[in-house]
Amino acid sequence: MAPTAYPRIAGLSADYLAKQLRDFRAGTRNNPLMRPMASRLSDAEIAAISTYYAALPIPAPVAEPPARDVTKTAAELARWGDWSGRGLPGCGQCHGPDGNGIGSGFPGISGQQASYIEAQLQAWKTGVRANDPMGLMKAVADRLTDVEIHALAAYYNARPGAPPTPAGKTLSPSVKDEPVPARQLDSGDVPHHGPPPAGRTVSAARYFEPPSRDAMPGGPLGNAILQGQAIFDSTNTHPLSSKYVGNRQTCGNCHLDAGRRPGSAPLWAAWVAYPAYRTKDDEINTYIERIQGCFRYSMNAQASVHGGPPAAHSETMTSLVAYSYWLAKGALTGDLRMPGRGYVRLKETSRGFDPGRGAAVYAAKCALCHGEDGAGVAHADGRTLFPPLWGAGSYNWGAGMHRVDTAAAFIKHNMPLGVSGVLSDQEAWDVAAFVNSHERPQDPRHRGDLALTTSEFHASKFDYYGKRKGPDGRMLGER
Amino acid sequence: MAPTAYPRIAGLSADYLAKQLRDFRAGTRNNPLMRPMASRLSDAEIAAISTYYAALPIPAPVAEPPARDVTKTAAELARWGDWSGRGLPGCGQCHGPDGNGIGSGFPGISGQQASYIEAQLQAWKTGVRANDPMGLMKAVADRLTDVEIHALAAYYNARPGAPPTPAGKTLSPSVKDEPVPARQLDSGDVPHHGPPPAGRTVSAARYFEPPSRDAMPGGPLGNAILQGQAIFDSTNTHPLSSKYVGNRQTCGNCHLDAGRRPGSAPLWAAWVAYPAYRTKDDEINTYIERIQGCFRYSMNAQASVHGGPPAAHSETMTSLVAYSYWLAKGALTGDLRMPGRGYVRLKETSRGFDPGRGAAVYAAKCALCHGEDGAGVAHADGRTLFPPLWGAGSYNWGAGMHRVDTAAAFIKHNMPLGVSGVLSDQEAWDVAAFVNSHERPQDPRHRGDLALTTSEFHASKFDYYGKRKGPDGRMLGER
Repeated sequence: MAPTAYPRIAGLSADYLAKQLRDFRAGTRNNPLMRPMASRLSDAEIAAISTYYAALPIPAPVAEPPARDVTKTAAELARWGDWSGRGLPGCGQCHGPDGNGIGSGFPGISGQQASYIEAQLQAWKTGVRANDPMGLMKAVADRLTDVEIHALAAYYNARPGAPPTPAGKTLSPSVKDEPVPARQLDSGDVPHHGPPPAGRTVSAARYFEPPSRDAMPGGPLGNAILQGQAIFDSTNTHPLSSKYVGNRQTCGNCHLDAGRRPGSAPLWAAWVAYPAYRTKDDEINTYIERIQGCFRYSMNAQASVHGGPPAAHSETMTSLVAYSYWLAKGALTGDLRMPGRGYVRLKETSRGFDPGRGAAVYAAKCALCHGEDGAGVAHADGRTLFPPLWGAGSYNWGAGMHRVDTAAAFIKHNMPLGVSGVLSDQEAWDVAAFVNSHERPQDPRHRGDLALTTSEFHASKFDYYGKRKGPDGRMLGER
Repeated sequence: MAPTAYPRIAGLSADYLAKQLRDFRAGTRNNPLMRPMASRLSDAEIAAISTYYAALPIPAPVAEPPARDVTKTAAELARWGDWSGRGLPGCGQCHGPDGNGIGSGFPGISGQQASYIEAQLQAWKTGVRANDPMGLMKAVADRLTDVEIHALAAYYNARPGAPPTPAGKTLSPSVKDEPVPARQLDSGDVPHHGPPPAGRTVSAARYFEPPSRDAMPGGPLGNAILQGQAIFDSTNTHPLSSKYVGNRQTCGNCHLDAGRRPGSAPLWAAWVAYPAYRTKDDEINTYIERIQGCFRYSMNAQASVHGGPPAAHSETMTSLVAYSYWLAKGALTGDLRMPGRGYVRLKETSRGFDPGRGAAVYAAKCALCHGEDGAGVAHADGRTLFPPLWGAGSYNWGAGMHRVDTAAAFIKHNMPLGVSGVLSDQEAWDVAAFVNSHERPQDPRHRGDLALTTSEFHASKFDYYGKRKGPDGRMLGER
């Protein structure tokens, strides 16, 4: 396949291709070459064409990887983005770690023509192309420099293309096709200690800056830090940690940007705040015990191969400890007031929160990634691409995120990934209520008596456990 | 007993009384009233009088405890002294936690006349009285304000007197009676990162200052911190930690001022430096594992009731962790260059180090507290007053302190307690060699083959294990 400005379409998702053809036909994707052709296609023809091309074998890449420094820039952006500086998610977080796309919403970009990738990113940026869900690509492209766009195009061009990871339960076309305009950020929503709003450059002085990934030390400690980062990033599949995870969650699912992002419980703020007393177990918790709590609740370790969290002395734990310690390098021990610590609180709204209203928000703005059934998306090798939000693969009833207030705050300030701010406070409350009105793995503190567990641990009004029936009509927490 | 200027002598150590009478007789303790009387006493009469008074019952205190703020000042000085500010040890560190004295060198001061205590402290200060070992009392009194002296006198006056704790093996009179003049500190000896020389006020900016004991938080974390401090201070007898200690050492024996003192491995510098890779076990050690190492080696946990160090989740460990964390409050995470971190290194001398020369130093300047047999002194209830330096009660062959270089540096900069600086570098090296040329509990890494353990863990030239015979003619490490 010789380099041209024409994109490779062989092997892309049929649904994605069909959507593009429909968009060309409707003019919502504006292309002078494609529009006249697409406008003559019937729905049936579009379906046939899309299916045909989707089934074609993907050509092997002919492009050479770009120069080392270009590759470094692009690989960093592809994997991690630049959250702290620009609220920019990594490309791979939506297009998959291999760049081959997820479902119909996120097309494969590996093995794609470099000039095509570059042209599209510039088109998103200038607004020439705008048929993306929730303005995601516009938001991302806006934050990329021309040099970075060029680097990313060359980088992905040289990577091997492969079929996309199928999404979970497919969305109804009506939801999928409805463009949702990105709302302007209302900075009044962001409390003093809030995270940097996506898309705005945040003054470096406002939040603690963990050391850059380039500044990782060498030697055995450096290896442990690197390993801790890898475990953090793919907890449920990493060889050292998968046996402790009883669902499909990773540390990084709740602690965005691999534990760096202010306002999503960054590790640098947690590290300096432990040991601490926690009402959760009425004990002084060391940092290690705090991590074990994450495994017990958010990663449902009871259902794991090991049957519980990693021991204090396990390599898994020391790696996570080393990684956390390194992220906190330079932070003041015992500083409980670091801006961006924990999750930002979200003020209650006059309308309260309602799962019914939340269902509509979810369908419009969350299901694209997390699936209509809340089960998220996993790579063929088991890696979590979009985490499950309820059901067996999700956090259990003991995790902090099962509380509507915690989830609402997290969602408001972090979701949708890369375009946080598009949800109003009300939408965040409602969708959090919707998510947490579904059944999930049992609270490990439950000893068989639902009423007792409810009164002991779930008395809060932000907590549906034991107090509301799930969609199947059974009391939440009963299973 | 009505308040007078005359001291209570009933129940004081017979040896102490005899020494004072001899000193009055010789004029080395100058008192116009006592000298004429003492000068007419024979050695036999002095012995008889001393034995008589030592056996008299101690009167109950009649003095009321002083006002609350006075008591607070005095109690703090009595227990902790003011190390960080003035290199001032607590009175109780030599006179015993109950103030009733230890052996013949440190008389009881509880239940003593307030005016007498005050007069003596002023006499040490002005040089009127100077018959103390190594200028210890002069050094201490010099650092006390008149207000503090007054407070301490009232405080000890109101405490119940009791017989002194017997010292270990008694010293020969020739050593005991020989006054050792305090040498001037040679500040050239103190390297840049050294601890504050005792007796000199150190600029607060030079060393990190842990929070004052007054600033301890309340609530469950405060309780844990306080408990951690108590464990640290009396590790081998505290109900929570005694079962993990297989000898007669406490954390505070190596980490002076309860882990606060710069240059004696202060906890505030250690806290921010872990996790870290250690060659000792070729692993990344978390802070908890580092503490477990202290138990394993310095406190010989193998010989304890529990048979090993406290588990990561034990209340003992979380308390020690909480205490360390609190001491480091405000220190920068990952700062490996905190002045005063670890033990100060001591430059090698041209004469090397020699246990033979060290024996004389030990007898003159160490045996007073640690005993001629190195077994230290324990209170009747088991509390360590002066830690053993060799033998079953001491640190084992795996502890850092068994190395001559480590011990030499520790001794040079911290010993004798309250008058560090009186030893030359050469004396510190030699006495460290003497101490560590004695047998002690086995290295827990030993698997039965002395030559192998020696080559694996004791190759250093500063290490006598497996390379030198002890005083009994058997190879060190063989037992």
